[in-house]
Amino acid sequence: MLKLDFHPAGRHFLQIPGPSPVPDRILRAMSYPTIDHRGPEFGALGLQVLEGIKKIFKTAQPVVIYPASGTGAWEAALVNTLSAGDHVLMFETGHFATLWKKMAEALGLKTEFLGLPGIEGWRRGVQADMIEQRLRQDSGHEIKAVCVVHNETSTGVTSDIAAVRRAIDAAGHPALLLVDTISGLASADYRHDEWGVDVTVSGSQKGLMLPPGISFNAVSKKAIEASKTATLPKAFWNWAEIIEMNATGYWPYTPNTNLLYGLSEAIDMILGEGLDNTFARHQRLAHACRSAVKAWGLEIQCADPAVYSPVLTGVMTPPGVDADAIRKLIYDKFNMSLGTGLGKMKGKMFRIGHLGEANDLTLMATLAGCEMGLKLAGVPLAGSGVQAAMAELSASVAPDQLKAA
Amino acid sequence: MLKLDFHPAGRHFLQIPGPSPVPDRILRAMSYPTIDHRGPEFGALGLQVLEGIKKIFKTAQPVVIYPASGTGAWEAALVNTLSAGDHVLMFETGHFATLWKKMAEALGLKTEFLGLPGIEGWRRGVQADMIEQRLRQDSGHEIKAVCVVHNETSTGVTSDIAAVRRAIDAAGHPALLLVDTISGLASADYRHDEWGVDVTVSGSQKGLMLPPGISFNAVSKKAIEASKTATLPKAFWNWAEIIEMNATGYWPYTPNTNLLYGLSEAIDMILGEGLDNTFARHQRLAHACRSAVKAWGLEIQCADPAVYSPVLTGVMTPPGVDADAIRKLIYDKFNMSLGTGLGKMKGKMFRIGHLGEANDLTLMATLAGCEMGLKLAGVPLAGSGVQAAMAELSASVAPDQLKAA
Amino acid sequence: MLKLDFHPAGRHFLQIPGPSPVPDRILRAMSYPTIDHRGPEFGALGLQVLEGIKKIFKTAQPVVIYPASGTGAWEAALVNTLSAGDHVLMFETGHFATLWKKMAEALGLKTEFLGLPGIEGWRRGVQADMIEQRLRQDSGHEIKAVCVVHNETSTGVTSDIAAVRRAIDAAGHPALLLVDTISGLASADYRHDEWGVDVTVSGSQKGLMLPPGISFNAVSKKAIEASKTATLPKAFWNWAEIIEMNATGYWPYTPNTNLLYGLSEAIDMILGEGLDNTFARHQRLAHACRSAVKAWGLEIQCADPAVYSPVLTGVMTPPGVDADAIRKLIYDKFNMSLGTGLGKMKGKMFRIGHLGEANDLTLMATLAGCEMGLKLAGVPLAGSGVQAAMAELSASVAPDQLKAA
Amino acid sequence: MLKLDFHPAGRHFLQIPGPSPVPDRILRAMSYPTIDHRGPEFGALGLQVLEGIKKIFKTAQPVVIYPASGTGAWEAALVNTLSAGDHVLMFETGHFATLWKKMAEALGLKTEFLGLPGIEGWRRGVQADMIEQRLRQDSGHEIKAVCVVHNETSTGVTSDIAAVRRAIDAAGHPALLLVDTISGLASADYRHDEWGVDVTVSGSQKGLMLPPGISFNAVSKKAIEASKTATLPKAFWNWAEIIEMNATGYWPYTPNTNLLYGLSEAIDMILGEGLDNTFARHQRLAHACRSAVKAWGLEIQCADPAVYSPVLTGVMTPPGVDADAIRKLIYDKFNMSLGTGLGKMKGKMFRIGHLGEANDLTLMATLAGCEMGLKLAGVPLAGSGVQAAMAELSASVAPDQLKAA
Repeated sequence: MLKLDFHPAGRHFLQIPGPSPVPDRILRAMSYPTIDHRGPEFGALGLQVLEGIKKIFKTAQPVVIYPASGTGAWEAALVNTLSAGDHVLMFETGHFATLWKKMAEALGLKTEFLGLPGIEGWRRGVQADMIEQRLRQDSGHEIKAVCVVHNETSTGVTSDIAAVRRAIDAAGHPALLLVDTISGLASADYRHDEWGVDVTVSGSQKGLMLPPGISFNAVSKKAIEASKTATLPKAFWNWAEIIEMNATGYWPYTPNTNLLYGLSEAIDMILGEGLDNTFARHQRLAHACRSAVKAWGLEIQCADPAVYSPVLTGVMTPPGVDADAIRKLIYDKFNMSLGTGLGKMKGKMFRIGHLGEANDLTLMATLAGCEMGLKLAGVPLAGSGVQAAMAELSASVAPDQLKAA
Repeated sequence: MLKLDFHPAGRHFLQIPGPSPVPDRILRAMSYPTIDHRGPEFGALGLQVLEGIKKIFKTAQPVVIYPASGTGAWEAALVNTLSAGDHVLMFETGHFATLWKKMAEALGLKTEFLGLPGIEGWRRGVQADMIEQRLRQDSGHEIKAVCVVHNETSTGVTSDIAAVRRAIDAAGHPALLLVDTISGLASADYRHDEWGVDVTVSGSQKGLMLPPGISFNAVSKKAIEASKTATLPKAFWNWAEIIEMNATGYWPYTPNTNLLYGLSEAIDMILGEGLDNTFARHQRLAHACRSAVKAWGLEIQCADPAVYSPVLTGVMTPPGVDADAIRKLIYDKFNMSLGTGLGKMKGKMFRIGHLGEANDLTLMATLAGCEMGLKLAGVPLAGSGVQAAMAELSASVAPDQLKAA
Repeated sequence: MLKLDFHPAGRHFLQIPGPSPVPDRILRAMSYPTIDHRGPEFGALGLQVLEGIKKIFKTAQPVVIYPASGTGAWEAALVNTLSAGDHVLMFETGHFATLWKKMAEALGLKTEFLGLPGIEGWRRGVQADMIEQRLRQDSGHEIKAVCVVHNETSTGVTSDIAAVRRAIDAAGHPALLLVDTISGLASADYRHDEWGVDVTVSGSQKGLMLPPGISFNAVSKKAIEASKTATLPKAFWNWAEIIEMNATGYWPYTPNTNLLYGLSEAIDMILGEGLDNTFARHQRLAHACRSAVKAWGLEIQCADPAVYSPVLTGVMTPPGVDADAIRKLIYDKFNMSLGTGLGKMKGKMFRIGHLGEANDLTLMATLAGCEMGLKLAGVPLAGSGVQAAMAELSASVAPDQLKAA
Repeated sequence: MLKLDFHPAGRHFLQIPGPSPVPDRILRAMSYPTIDHRGPEFGALGLQVLEGIKKIFKTAQPVVIYPASGTGAWEAALVNTLSAGDHVLMFETGHFATLWKKMAEALGLKTEFLGLPGIEGWRRGVQADMIEQRLRQDSGHEIKAVCVVHNETSTGVTSDIAAVRRAIDAAGHPALLLVDTISGLASADYRHDEWGVDVTVSGSQKGLMLPPGISFNAVSKKAIEASKTATLPKAFWNWAEIIEMNATGYWPYTPNTNLLYGLSEAIDMILGEGLDNTFARHQRLAHACRSAVKAWGLEIQCADPAVYSPVLTGVMTPPGVDADAIRKLIYDKFNMSLGTGLGKMKGKMFRIGHLGEANDLTLMATLAGCEMGLKLAGVPLAGSGVQAAMAELSASVAPDQLKAA
């Protein structure tokens, strides 16, 4: 029998950019008794989460909830809207954009990958002008969809989706706009309707503070129209039946009831704080985190301040310093998990998550762990990031956090 | 805010044939802190559940675990092994066999549905001789797969899978054998290797006693070979990458960690009891349940005693009696959920689940609720099913249930 | 390491007259994070439970909550109101009345034990006329307190406390009335103010559905007056400081915070159902339980129908039949715990608890377990108690139990 | 209905010197189903915790476990060993020593309070030489017990109990030695047998990491002898019956089962880490905490480095600075609870708890919250305590914390 309590004395700090720490409230909600997903009370639960999740996506259009983890929702976005051989334009923002492209190819789509050269693309957001230019060239409208990642989890860059929308419109191009905000949703501002996104893909284990296992497609009318003629095979991911049955709060097949309990609680927590307050909290923490990195004299992976991520901060280690060795030291000595460098950045950076259930003192613990670890690893630091972050947090001190109910 | 505790005083009896009641032990295990699915301790968890689940399937071959509910695993079995337009032979055992056929068609396969006429097919198991006969006719080996449901959740019939294997072999036909034991696994005896099944599909929310959200494909070498040339698009469901990464206990994309904690606990519980003891327990309870139905003078949906299900019992109501009205009365008055009649059987029967975490007294409570409900609904009963079941249980009294650890 | 999950497959039926099964809602509430018992939010919790518990006792006077199990609250009632050598009149209703008397003696009080001869006193409630008669003789008012047990857990007799009050008044006697309703509260109707009780003692692990660990003294003005001059040493149990600090929702020493969370939830559950609905539910279940015992041809321990307990039913086994052997058989074979015969009734009866979180089907499971066990033990039964109970429950069918929120 | 989740986004930091944060493992253990405290499996649980808790007290003699919070165990120590009017010698180490003295008086004992003048006594530990001197004067052996507090929670001073033992022995005095280590046990080294303590009092909500509600008396042979003739009234607290029934793992009255589950888990956690490793961890954290206070240029409440507490650190604020205003600011702005100054120290200091489930990063979060709060409150600081603590922790870096099971 495996002991599931892996960690030693004291709380483990899970500071990867997802899965994020699951609050006790959500773990408790997930332990409500499983009910009959065809019984009368399930409909009430279903209607509530379906209505609540729309507010999180800032949409009045349907949000499809899948009993599957986020990668499934990527697939769902593609198979519902596209046909074999369709040309899709994707933008290389990092590792997850690359994985999504790989999936599109596996599904038989023809992909085209725009991007900046070398690792530059991994340090800046989507370049909307490049998309506009490319679409203008596509006078035959061969390109059926533009796929971009909103918050690139591998780098800590949050691209400007409104700009991508404007680029498509400026080019007068009919391509669908498909956006992955798996790690952005509910930590970074996101506006499905206002930004004119056709399919927004997201997941549960990031800003929603749930364990992995639920994922989402928020869909536009135009996307639904496209799904009626798209011919990639689809059954489990098919929007049509799900949206139809969702009208009464049910699903055509077994939904994952206990994670829906958790989702219901997460929605209550986020809307209780106020969605925009949640975003402001993450911006403030991210700002303090970057102050620390700058004070250490290390480089932030995101090279364009306009697209700094409120979800995570990528920290580049000096040439010759193995970032994963530092991560391991911090893990072994200080009981904290940090995100590894992925793909092109393997060994060259680590990622600090400050998404979901994060506050001033969990950030300070995290930065202290990083600073001690960097020093123990022999990385020369220009100054104390912990001091810099405390200065930032103190200067923008949070409104009163605690009120008796 | 929705109150998630729907039920009034006292415990609700969830006696549908799945989702089955989730034991407290499993709910507690699911509340362990979510960990880094790329961190060192995750591998230990992964290896343990991957090894343990093989014992439950009685296989030495790979079992692919999906972070998705059971319907997804149906799709996985098809898209990994088949190509567009492939001919599949399916057998109509009930509602779920029918849904699987519908899915196969949606995915672009050519289906052929064998079966007995009228509702007879919904009262008897798979007729292996019909399959053998049909395969013998298929001298060109157009048929690429035979798909059958082991335990048909809509009727309470557990088909003889070994006989289907023999039929295919007798016909000398190379078709793959794909079996759905979503509701059978871990309550009804199942032998993936011994029965020569190529893909076994299962899910979490039945005999494994978990909430919905995890599903499985146990796969044979022949199935893996087939997957290398099958051309239906596949990415999320693709076995190859998953099996490759599973070697070290990891997954290519985010697994649903907290349900894996639950799975680890479920495996411990089932292997702790002894898999064959678990099967014997369910056979005994099912036998007692059927004694009750017979004593009431009502008909059991399954008309062939050789294939009675140890998982659930379908109870046909007399002509003119609306089974769903009885279910509603029992739900309203006695705080118990029973399964509805599906498809062809809508309103003509109800289903009693006695799978997963079931014992003598939960069965007696269930039967008492049914008997009181049937009488209150005015259904004439020949005798007391409760008395009959008590007689059966007493005659085959369980071995001592309780031992201090 | 001890495995804390003692029980085998399926749910254990804990049908002793307390501790009663703790509902999941309460277990979840108990898992909220422990807070600073001197911090601002604790006061809100304290005030809420102090106000809510008054409704359960039907009192407008203070209820003192102790972080100690019920036996402590017995001691508290005595040491707060009495002085060394004080004469107390107690009534022998059973084992717990006897234990309370033993405690009074240990504390240096002079006890007098009224009662009916032999086991008769254990089969009937408090005889108010005997108390009246005795008090009339006590013209010097030597007797300082009358102590009675409301619901005698060892026998299943619920005495008429209003009658005791009338007896004291009729005798014109100034003695305090001290009542133990440890096992009665929240399952049997109880009216601290209306019945003129001076100190009511209760505990958490019965009708309140909590684990053991919290206990109560509801106190009258007269009792508080008495406490000012009573000289038995008191510190931990001293009402004065507790009542004073309770004004703002705090305690003079560390309260057991997590059980107070559970108490808050229990109060919500009970007042949500409606206290009188809760009582009616238990009366109905108790009535059905007694129908079963009568159908078996066994004797109910309580010989006076006017004082049948809604909390538990004592079942006497025929002469020569060892009740504990039957209990063991039922425990071993059917995974159910029943209460043992205590004191004078050792081996001669067993006790069926139907208090707290109980409903129709848990009662039917319980009675089925008893009936099968009795038969397997070779006890000749006149008929089926299970049938009789089903008839009773069906005849008085519960109002609709389930409503989606 | 009160919302029991009082806190806003992110985890609350409960850094008071008890109740300490309850680990999830213990909360989960506390949610196991309540069992029959007279049934067979309870005995196994009882024997296990009774045996395990002895290891924590470093004793081979009985440890009595009360279903009551710590103040009750103070009372138990006194009423079991003493008689009305007995003379007890107590030492003023702080607020809790003062409260214990007050209790002794309430119980009718004659107390004598040794101590240093002014607040000096609250800054230094027990002065064993003063005790020795006083006992030498007591040639008639009027003094029946010497009562001292091991870890004074109000100040952060951990007295030398072995020295007190030597003092008593040197004086050749037969007085019992009663020690309160409510807040010391399982965080600070404690040796009931080796130090010749007669009664050690402790509680659950500190180093044992449980919620409040369980408390302890570890007792010597001499104490048990004394209890046979001591005449203070005792019933609930009476050792004799409890120790007798504990032989088989049971209690004479209802124990608080679910907290015993938690205790069983706590014992597993502590002995799993290794008791001496636990002590070393707390010493290291306390050392780092004091480095921070010194770097701030603030005074540590404990003025004698030989008796610094590994459990908590008292921080004195500069004259004229209201420590409670700082605490409130930190609570409001940084979601952290600190301990208030008690009694003589009200408003003059705050207390930082680093007991129980504490590790490097929770301490760093705590110190960062203090440092930011002190600065925001305008307290001039000499330097950065956070920097000093990081230096200390890095210099004595912990052994590897994480190992996959």
